Amino acid sequence: MELSPYWLRDNCPCPDCRDPRNGQKLFQITDLPEGLAISASTEREEHLEVLWNDGHRSRYPLAWLTAPAEGDHRTEADKRLWAAADFASGIPEADWADYLADPAERAAVLRAVRRFGFAVLRTVPTEERQVLRVAETFGYVRRTNYGELFDVRVEPDPNNLAFTSVAIAPHTDNPYRDPVPTLQLLHCLENAAVGGDSGLVDGFRAADLLRTEAPDAFATLTRTPVPFGFRDRGAELRADRPLIDVDPLGRIREVRFNNRSIGTLRLPAAELDAFYAAYRRFAALTLRPELQLEFRLDPGDCLVFDNTRLLHARTAFEPGGTSQPPGGAGGGRRHLQGCYADLDSLASTLAVLERRVAVLDTLQDLFEGEGAGEYLGEAVSMAEHMLQAGVLAERAGAPDELVAAALLHDVGHFHGAVTGRELMTGTDNRHSHTGADWLAQWFGPEVTEPIRQHVAAKRYLCAVEPGYRESLSEASEYTLQVQGGPMTAEQAADFAQLPGSTEAVAVRRWDEQAKAADARTPDFAHFRPLLARLLAR
Amino acid sequence: MELSPYWLRDNCPCPDCRDPRNGQKLFQITDLPEGLAISASTEREEHLEVLWNDGHRSRYPLAWLTAPAEGDHRTEADKRLWAAADFASGIPEADWADYLADPAERAAVLRAVRRFGFAVLRTVPTEERQVLRVAETFGYVRRTNYGELFDVRVEPDPNNLAFTSVAIAPHTDNPYRDPVPTLQLLHCLENAAVGGDSGLVDGFRAADLLRTEAPDAFATLTRTPVPFGFRDRGAELRADRPLIDVDPLGRIREVRFNNRSIGTLRLPAAELDAFYAAYRRFAALTLRPELQLEFRLDPGDCLVFDNTRLLHARTAFEPGGTSQPPGGAGGGRRHLQGCYADLDSLASTLAVLERRVAVLDTLQDLFEGEGAGEYLGEAVSMAEHMLQAGVLAERAGAPDELVAAALLHDVGHFHGAVTGRELMTGTDNRHSHTGADWLAQWFGPEVTEPIRQHVAAKRYLCAVEPGYRESLSEASEYTLQVQGGPMTAEQAADFAQLPGSTEAVAVRRWDEQAKAADARTPDFAHFRPLLARLLAR
Repeated sequence: MELSPYWLRDNCPCPDCRDPRNGQKLFQITDLPEGLAISASTEREEHLEVLWNDGHRSRYPLAWLTAPAEGDHRTEADKRLWAAADFASGIPEADWADYLADPAERAAVLRAVRRFGFAVLRTVPTEERQVLRVAETFGYVRRTNYGELFDVRVEPDPNNLAFTSVAIAPHTDNPYRDPVPTLQLLHCLENAAVGGDSGLVDGFRAADLLRTEAPDAFATLTRTPVPFGFRDRGAELRADRPLIDVDPLGRIREVRFNNRSIGTLRLPAAELDAFYAAYRRFAALTLRPELQLEFRLDPGDCLVFDNTRLLHARTAFEPGGTSQPPGGAGGGRRHLQGCYADLDSLASTLAVLERRVAVLDTLQDLFEGEGAGEYLGEAVSMAEHMLQAGVLAERAGAPDELVAAALLHDVGHFHGAVTGRELMTGTDNRHSHTGADWLAQWFGPEVTEPIRQHVAAKRYLCAVEPGYRESLSEASEYTLQVQGGPMTAEQAADFAQLPGSTEAVAVRRWDEQAKAADARTPDFAHFRPLLARLLAR
Repeated sequence: MELSPYWLRDNCPCPDCRDPRNGQKLFQITDLPEGLAISASTEREEHLEVLWNDGHRSRYPLAWLTAPAEGDHRTEADKRLWAAADFASGIPEADWADYLADPAERAAVLRAVRRFGFAVLRTVPTEERQVLRVAETFGYVRRTNYGELFDVRVEPDPNNLAFTSVAIAPHTDNPYRDPVPTLQLLHCLENAAVGGDSGLVDGFRAADLLRTEAPDAFATLTRTPVPFGFRDRGAELRADRPLIDVDPLGRIREVRFNNRSIGTLRLPAAELDAFYAAYRRFAALTLRPELQLEFRLDPGDCLVFDNTRLLHARTAFEPGGTSQPPGGAGGGRRHLQGCYADLDSLASTLAVLERRVAVLDTLQDLFEGEGAGEYLGEAVSMAEHMLQAGVLAERAGAPDELVAAALLHDVGHFHGAVTGRELMTGTDNRHSHTGADWLAQWFGPEVTEPIRQHVAAKRYLCAVEPGYRESLSEASEYTLQVQGGPMTAEQAADFAQLPGSTEAVAVRRWDEQAKAADARTPDFAHFRPLLARLLAR
């Protein structure tokens, strides 16, 4: 395998080259010497070890060396281009409550926005300003001259056609902004109008078709900066960008299409003729019926879409009144509230959610896989034992963190250097510590510390509570001895002073009770929303 | 002159084609017929009149037809590229109080940011969160994962090298965001550190030099998307953009340069070699001493700069403590607060300010030009008369709007169809109405209505106030008769009911008094800040 020396060295993962906390590089590219070269390299333990001619040593995982390029999130390469028929069986959508509760559901919605360019949330409360709350679930609201949010309804003296009842052809918003807002949200508060349906067109698909059907027109649109403009009393915006923007590799990465705000191009007449021919061809393409995805936004629906890719439209409607508050008397009104946000934060939120979903999936796999195994010879499986402990905590009204601690208190049996079986053969696997340390990657101390102390809590209870030791199961009595036996009076006094010891004792009691054979216990999925809430904190 | 038909028609300014309120187009480009052509055209009264083959008629100002292209605001074409020596006599700066008070000063600062990429505001109050107020004077704060604002000071457990005391080489911020924040603000609250100076490099100039000195390296950097990344517990950002982004015409429009957060390029080794050679060459160029503009931010300084163009840096410093509140005891500390915003709103704010400055300049020209002329035969010039009225209102403690009304009450003499001279020859020029109508383009009714009523107020006062008429100057007595003489009792009762009649009467009294020969009167400049405030409302 041929390796580029500066590239390889720039990616050295050693702690002198990269901050272990955040991965930021600690040297400048100009710090590397001229003529940098590999003096020697060896493959060892799935790593490539490199000695450089300036004496530095680097060590690269072989899997990293040959990893493929990751998707770029923004160009057509990372998208699924579509026509209306692709959604014949339904559009990407989710219920607001599920979206809030379940990171997997939320990730699916955000993935749809990235992949298809849009998704609809249903049953979002029809309250004013709620659209801002939706945006805050995945990013930051981008304010514009239209405000933090804007009301789309008929206005008596509109500064924009959006605020009338006329039909609006497919377009992207704010083309006169640079940077253009990359996401738009439209939350329907009221739609009793006749007409006023919504339409979406995949602008990337339209551009892709243009490239196929009329490559010269496509090239003309990608290489002609167009002056977009907007002017009123308080604003005078202008951006010069092509209708179809491609990245340096020629991949479509932005469509900016808004007939209403194209200003005056200043080019020789022949170039203007060519541009207008291409523009008209592209515009006609965006109007093809097979590209028009039409649906109606009903109250509670919130459409989230990629404003660098999708064109949105609405049919004309018969207005039922102007500027009335939502929910007022009278029919025929249509009232949406909209705001803008950005794709980069959405992608970041999705990546972090995917990490969380991966944690939940890992835990679920443990419960459903290894967890089915026996639990120290008790009459329940390991998973049943932990699920029962979680249910006991839940029934006792414990806070989320403590329910999670009860549920997960024995994960160290899966993940320690030694397993529960070894504990039962006389070796303390210190499972409380290994479990707590492993979980601390994702959960706070309110979850991990009761787990860390739950073994000590048994030794404590046996020391201070008459009759407790006698109540232990046979296996628990055995492991007590492996774990050091009851605390001394001094140890017990110290333990009682520790922060979190009360919670550890609570977990311990549920632990001892959670060994009921044949109890009806909910499965791991029951606890996912609770764990998801904790992961989000 | 050869005209492109679709281009010409797309720019038809008639009210059927364009909303007169906001200039938005009312037709779709696809609404225009195939084979659109000019049937006939005539030049008349500085306009081109066009009859189209679909029967539509358009009328274009000749000056519009031949107007040059406007600057695009964002590429190198619209910038003044610089080296450090260009600021040997000082950097673009302004005092915060002047910046707030004077739209011309504010416009100059924003113009500097657009043209040179930066400016410094001095004596900004050293209060926490003040940087947000600075940003709000020209745009909207762009929130990021670092918060609405971020503190640049030594932190015990930094998630970014910015929050340490090490030197930071020239770079742009947030390259892993797309859209990248296009403006950055850094407000110095405290800088008692040894070291910790600031540096700026014009990235466009560096890119321009690279293009001249190593065209192949320049081309390599413009055509290689680079994966920038940042990852911590709460964020996972990634953007794939070239180090030097050019627009479709090849003009430099963005530099993205941050060694710390360049991720792993995945390309064939030969391309990696070429990229790294070009990258190292560009990086070395950004470090050339002649490009480094160095200065120290002192408490109260707020640096505003273009994060798509300028690279910023800081020298290492000896930290005086970690995470202490500003103003606390102990020396050596450095504390900046920063935030992000965007260039599009800055350009919009500048354009609107320039409109305001143009209004103020127009008024000033009137006072200093035509205003020097005689005032209806009085012993003072027109300008002196109006300035005296303004001063009288000011001394009486009148609100800004009423001072402005007093100052501007006779602008109608300049702008009516007939002039003051004609009024003195027996023709009522209705100057109160023409003045009020003209000013209403920019000022609210609190300014314009007292002006509109100030002639009526004289007729009112002569009707209701014994002795008032006798106090009039000879000229004023003459014009009273031209204007209709004293009101009847009924007219006077109606007038007293009008909203704003009290203010009109006040203006009238100052008007009558403002005829003192040889009074020392401040010039128009004295009133500019007050008028500027009103224009901003």
